Amino acid sequence: MPKRKICVVVTARPSYSRIKSALTAIKEHPSLELQLVIAGSALLDRYGNAADFIERDGFKAAAKVFMVLEGENPTTMAKTTGIGVMELTNVFYNLKPDAVVTIADRFETIATSIAAAYQNIPLVHIQGGEVTGSIDEKVRHANTKLADLHLVSSEEARDRVIKLGEDPEKVINTGCPSIDLVKEICTEEHLNFDPIEKYGGVGENLDWKNGYAVVMQHPVTTEYRQAREHILETLEAVNKLDYPVFWFWPNVDAGSDGTSNGIRTFREMVKPKNIHFFKNMDPLDFLRLLKHSKVLVGNSSAGIRECSYLGVPVVNIGIRQNRRLRGNNVKDVPHQRDKIFEAVKDSFHSDKHPGSQIYGDGDAGNKIAEILATSELSFSKTISY
Amino acid sequence: MPKRKICVVVTARPSYSRIKSALTAIKEHPSLELQLVIAGSALLDRYGNAADFIERDGFKAAAKVFMVLEGENPTTMAKTTGIGVMELTNVFYNLKPDAVVTIADRFETIATSIAAAYQNIPLVHIQGGEVTGSIDEKVRHANTKLADLHLVSSEEARDRVIKLGEDPEKVINTGCPSIDLVKEICTEEHLNFDPIEKYGGVGENLDWKNGYAVVMQHPVTTEYRQAREHILETLEAVNKLDYPVFWFWPNVDAGSDGTSNGIRTFREMVKPKNIHFFKNMDPLDFLRLLKHSKVLVGNSSAGIRECSYLGVPVVNIGIRQNRRLRGNNVKDVPHQRDKIFEAVKDSFHSDKHPGSQIYGDGDAGNKIAEILATSELSFSKTISY
Amino acid sequence: MPKRKICVVVTARPSYSRIKSALTAIKEHPSLELQLVIAGSALLDRYGNAADFIERDGFKAAAKVFMVLEGENPTTMAKTTGIGVMELTNVFYNLKPDAVVTIADRFETIATSIAAAYQNIPLVHIQGGEVTGSIDEKVRHANTKLADLHLVSSEEARDRVIKLGEDPEKVINTGCPSIDLVKEICTEEHLNFDPIEKYGGVGENLDWKNGYAVVMQHPVTTEYRQAREHILETLEAVNKLDYPVFWFWPNVDAGSDGTSNGIRTFREMVKPKNIHFFKNMDPLDFLRLLKHSKVLVGNSSAGIRECSYLGVPVVNIGIRQNRRLRGNNVKDVPHQRDKIFEAVKDSFHSDKHPGSQIYGDGDAGNKIAEILATSELSFSKTISY
Amino acid sequence: MPKRKICVVVTARPSYSRIKSALTAIKEHPSLELQLVIAGSALLDRYGNAADFIERDGFKAAAKVFMVLEGENPTTMAKTTGIGVMELTNVFYNLKPDAVVTIADRFETIATSIAAAYQNIPLVHIQGGEVTGSIDEKVRHANTKLADLHLVSSEEARDRVIKLGEDPEKVINTGCPSIDLVKEICTEEHLNFDPIEKYGGVGENLDWKNGYAVVMQHPVTTEYRQAREHILETLEAVNKLDYPVFWFWPNVDAGSDGTSNGIRTFREMVKPKNIHFFKNMDPLDFLRLLKHSKVLVGNSSAGIRECSYLGVPVVNIGIRQNRRLRGNNVKDVPHQRDKIFEAVKDSFHSDKHPGSQIYGDGDAGNKIAEILATSELSFSKTISY
Repeated sequence: MPKRKICVVVTARPSYSRIKSALTAIKEHPSLELQLVIAGSALLDRYGNAADFIERDGFKAAAKVFMVLEGENPTTMAKTTGIGVMELTNVFYNLKPDAVVTIADRFETIATSIAAAYQNIPLVHIQGGEVTGSIDEKVRHANTKLADLHLVSSEEARDRVIKLGEDPEKVINTGCPSIDLVKEICTEEHLNFDPIEKYGGVGENLDWKNGYAVVMQHPVTTEYRQAREHILETLEAVNKLDYPVFWFWPNVDAGSDGTSNGIRTFREMVKPKNIHFFKNMDPLDFLRLLKHSKVLVGNSSAGIRECSYLGVPVVNIGIRQNRRLRGNNVKDVPHQRDKIFEAVKDSFHSDKHPGSQIYGDGDAGNKIAEILATSELSFSKTISY
Repeated sequence: MPKRKICVVVTARPSYSRIKSALTAIKEHPSLELQLVIAGSALLDRYGNAADFIERDGFKAAAKVFMVLEGENPTTMAKTTGIGVMELTNVFYNLKPDAVVTIADRFETIATSIAAAYQNIPLVHIQGGEVTGSIDEKVRHANTKLADLHLVSSEEARDRVIKLGEDPEKVINTGCPSIDLVKEICTEEHLNFDPIEKYGGVGENLDWKNGYAVVMQHPVTTEYRQAREHILETLEAVNKLDYPVFWFWPNVDAGSDGTSNGIRTFREMVKPKNIHFFKNMDPLDFLRLLKHSKVLVGNSSAGIRECSYLGVPVVNIGIRQNRRLRGNNVKDVPHQRDKIFEAVKDSFHSDKHPGSQIYGDGDAGNKIAEILATSELSFSKTISY
Repeated sequence: MPKRKICVVVTARPSYSRIKSALTAIKEHPSLELQLVIAGSALLDRYGNAADFIERDGFKAAAKVFMVLEGENPTTMAKTTGIGVMELTNVFYNLKPDAVVTIADRFETIATSIAAAYQNIPLVHIQGGEVTGSIDEKVRHANTKLADLHLVSSEEARDRVIKLGEDPEKVINTGCPSIDLVKEICTEEHLNFDPIEKYGGVGENLDWKNGYAVVMQHPVTTEYRQAREHILETLEAVNKLDYPVFWFWPNVDAGSDGTSNGIRTFREMVKPKNIHFFKNMDPLDFLRLLKHSKVLVGNSSAGIRECSYLGVPVVNIGIRQNRRLRGNNVKDVPHQRDKIFEAVKDSFHSDKHPGSQIYGDGDAGNKIAEILATSELSFSKTISY
Repeated sequence: MPKRKICVVVTARPSYSRIKSALTAIKEHPSLELQLVIAGSALLDRYGNAADFIERDGFKAAAKVFMVLEGENPTTMAKTTGIGVMELTNVFYNLKPDAVVTIADRFETIATSIAAAYQNIPLVHIQGGEVTGSIDEKVRHANTKLADLHLVSSEEARDRVIKLGEDPEKVINTGCPSIDLVKEICTEEHLNFDPIEKYGGVGENLDWKNGYAVVMQHPVTTEYRQAREHILETLEAVNKLDYPVFWFWPNVDAGSDGTSNGIRTFREMVKPKNIHFFKNMDPLDFLRLLKHSKVLVGNSSAGIRECSYLGVPVVNIGIRQNRRLRGNNVKDVPHQRDKIFEAVKDSFHSDKHPGSQIYGDGDAGNKIAEILATSELSFSKTISY
């Protein structure tokens, strides 16, 4: 019997980390053939060129697609999506996959969904059923309505996808594959590399051995004019800390210029002594860094997801992760420097939380591959009510 | 106070009929300015060039967008949608509307939705919440998840949109604007024009004064290879009738070539004596033709919607209208010539049904305009559960 | 040494005939690998689906690209070209050819040129340096200015490309590969198939054994409103002949609807007794049909090119082939039915012309392959004056 | 008589400076209506957002078009062009201009040319007939072959366009409109603003009153991997000077990341004491800065063009301006720090050159407007030989 061809489209650095264990499991599954498409900001230096990491990890791209229109504003986000639909349609047409996998809820993921669904290729959606604010919220649920098979990350998400009118047999909680990576590294007792030595970055050379914070804050699409203001609140807050801080550059999104601009200006003017900036890091090393940190600050989904399993305290700022299922390790604060500062300071003196399995037990990749290999693949459905 | 700019995108001939009364009401509303975009097959001669009708009706296009890629297959449908996203984004960016209206569930309507939603323009979806088969089903509900305000056509549809997680205050049953046109002509006692004289078309010159059938059958996207077979069953069935038949050419969709081909071949080979073919007709005249017909045959939504109000019997073939709310006037049959023949014959001898208001009372256009003028317009939402 | 990868883009049925012998020679050359891209109207049923012929001839497509926007007007021609640039860029990026071949002067060929030239892939232009009217004239010379290596079809064309500022060493007269096919069949003494039996088509079943005419007339882009009028002149003229006529449907171009419409209307109304219509024919069979015909009528380049070698009389109508190098076999007439009629009638009573080698000696395919295998490939140049 | 609608497409900051006086003259001409389209990098902050300057200068955009695909490599340059063709076609289709003006030779200008020429809109090309290296060379002459009217900047350019087969009556030497701006400011005796105070920028606060150099060096497309190396040679050279240096950031082009990267790294590591960096400047102020400088260093066309009229010495590095007509003020050097250093140092001690009018007398804008108002506009041509 010929192997099922599974086409996975990775359009950004964070999506890669989130799907990596599934990619490995698909690649190694005897009944599956992986067709990996690398597209969007995953190809761009400005956003950490995930393609490099992906290929270093031993994956080979079946196709690459440049599709990000410059401007980082709502208009270019929409056009980027249109370009993605055109290009990915062509890619699928020529690759002829048996199923296409679209990941989560970034704005351009709907391009993958349309290109597959309209060509009658069974569409598998990973990480549907969650809730956030902004355009992601619309995109995620639209992806659900275009998809035929839903591999979700939590029981709560499963319930929600079923409520959206999907056939319960087509909605399976595999847990989140990002937890698989966490599981891999979560027994390591010490940070086994020197982040500054290994990854360079810019800013002061910090002594992080006695505890450090990690910051990752993305712009929130529908408020992109405020991105600069928001990032400055966080910068001011963590700059007052007595502890060293590792700060990660945001990924592409409308408004990242506001955010990036804020960071650059702050660096030039304030020359913060306790902050070191990184553009990107190998996903596993990033998890190691998180695991051994005192606190993660910002609005990254890693705080909600990976840190729940690790039990690392999280100071979650603003509305970006609103209503995402979260563990006890998360403290929510608004974009106010004082509140941020207090919350971060507290976490330095608090104990670690026990890990939680609300996002899975760390075996999602294998479960996903097995389902893709064995479940019936169809491309036609009607709403259940 | 400046008028609210309402941008309505019409991408096909049938969508125009379905929205016409609302366009008129928007255009005439003192607080609204209509920005009409004519796109897709609405510009193409092969699909009846709706743009001509639209302009003859006194509407002026703010922009026109060619976007239909040739091929009439699933691949070109997807690419057409991508092109639509790119182009409509640009059109909205330059027109700066206060709200964008997307209509129903044709595959390319999601282009309108993405172009508006991603640019943070409040998106109004007309005719969400219904149920059918094929790709339309996915597109319609995805449109719902991208839209901010839902103007639905029936109570059943309203319930379904709310179940999909939308805020009940944002889901309003206006009835279907297509019924407004029906109401306009439904008191006319006789057909006040000669269809063949007025519209030409090809085929025999029929004596229709003593009763006639109307046929309109579209290809069903996900089975486009069977389109030819399906259309031949219907052709064989109506060719056996003793009554004259007016047959309407299908609109653009994947597979229309199978359908068109079937029709052309049948005409050349069988030279049917009782069938006359039309490419298109003024929407009001089409409704008049329906009202005075003995039966509508095929799978057009006009059978479900307009004919419910008119009480005209409908022989609905195949799965295209599966699960759409329908009146007692509809009889469902499979793609089998005998079943079709019997059902059509019966209807010639049966009485008319009483009209039903399941799709509205014929004042939808005014209700839509009023809501667009007065309701709060927003572009941010989260699922209700 | 790895084989040189030569990517040839075929975008239309006539381009395929024109390049076929070169494709074969490239495929069989020990130092070359053929990457065949089938795009544009070559994929569409309405234009004779050249892809079917191509695959039946044993070629395998490395990629297929739907890119023709519907509308058949100047606006959609331009957009089609833009889509082509986007898509072909992606195809070349993923195929990584050592050289790309663009053919002649159809409007969409500049998409191939830009996609290659901008990506620093050496661009080879086949059949530059000729002269015609209409948009082709602009496109052809623009292709020349984007290309790095020019394989032209005549000495006159070679002189012209050099005058355009190209390095004489990069301009080589290989002759036209379309002549290679002609050479293959030109010793056959009789037409070895029955065209109507083998290809069907529509119209009367003609007795062609005692001589027949062939008609092929394309719309002229910049006058597309007049296309209908022009075609009717030709139809009226050949309908008056006492001889049977084989008429070929035009290929895609702005205005083909005017032309197609004219043909369809004429058929329905006049029901011409001596004309049989074909949509397409295997290229070799088409040449056989030409070789044994009394005259070719219309504005096809086959009249200028293939018929010069065959010595078949040509009645060339209108400006489409203006200023193309031609043999003594060509008689030019305007779009006037009387002039067309007289010229065609004369040719039935005249002798065949001796063949001419102005477009090559029938070995162009091999010459092209050899040059592609051995010449230096570069992608940088400056004008010679 | 209705005014002629002249659509000018500005796709980049430098193109704006080059066309500004013509825009003004068109806008003020009684027989002309200006339709200004702002597109490409002219809309992007990263490239100095020319749209801001343009609107501050009192021009209103008839349409804006985001079209730059991220990646700054040959692949995204090509795709950007394809997007441009699609979008600009739509823009012209809706604006219905009587003529379209495309400027010079940036890679995306061919998008303007195709969108106009294919839609049978008379195409006017400004600044054809010049010679350089790289992809610009191909694009410029391809633009010439697509254009109907050629308004060139020098007699040499006029001769070359005629040699390319254009009708001499359609090739008019207006001089370069960029010289018009130079003329405006060239009688000012002192620099009337403080560049650092007015424009900020980054780097040391320099005392420039006793003489300074200006640097502007763009990446050369076809060698984009070497861009970083090239820029470092220049940085090292000017860093050794005893004089202050104003350095301008390069515009968008494949490889600008190599260049930008080189500049950023050099700044971080070497912290050059005598260099101040600007991202952009009002075009008139930039000319003022040039006029009062000791020397312009780099490969900007301003060195060839504007500085010839000003008589300011230019150290022109590398091949980018190869074969452009130049005055005696230009000294050419390779990408070698020693040669650059020597040449720049020399110029500080040399006298100013007398100005030259090889690129016009400073009245090009008015001449262009008058020609656009009065010349016959056509869209059909054939090569002259």
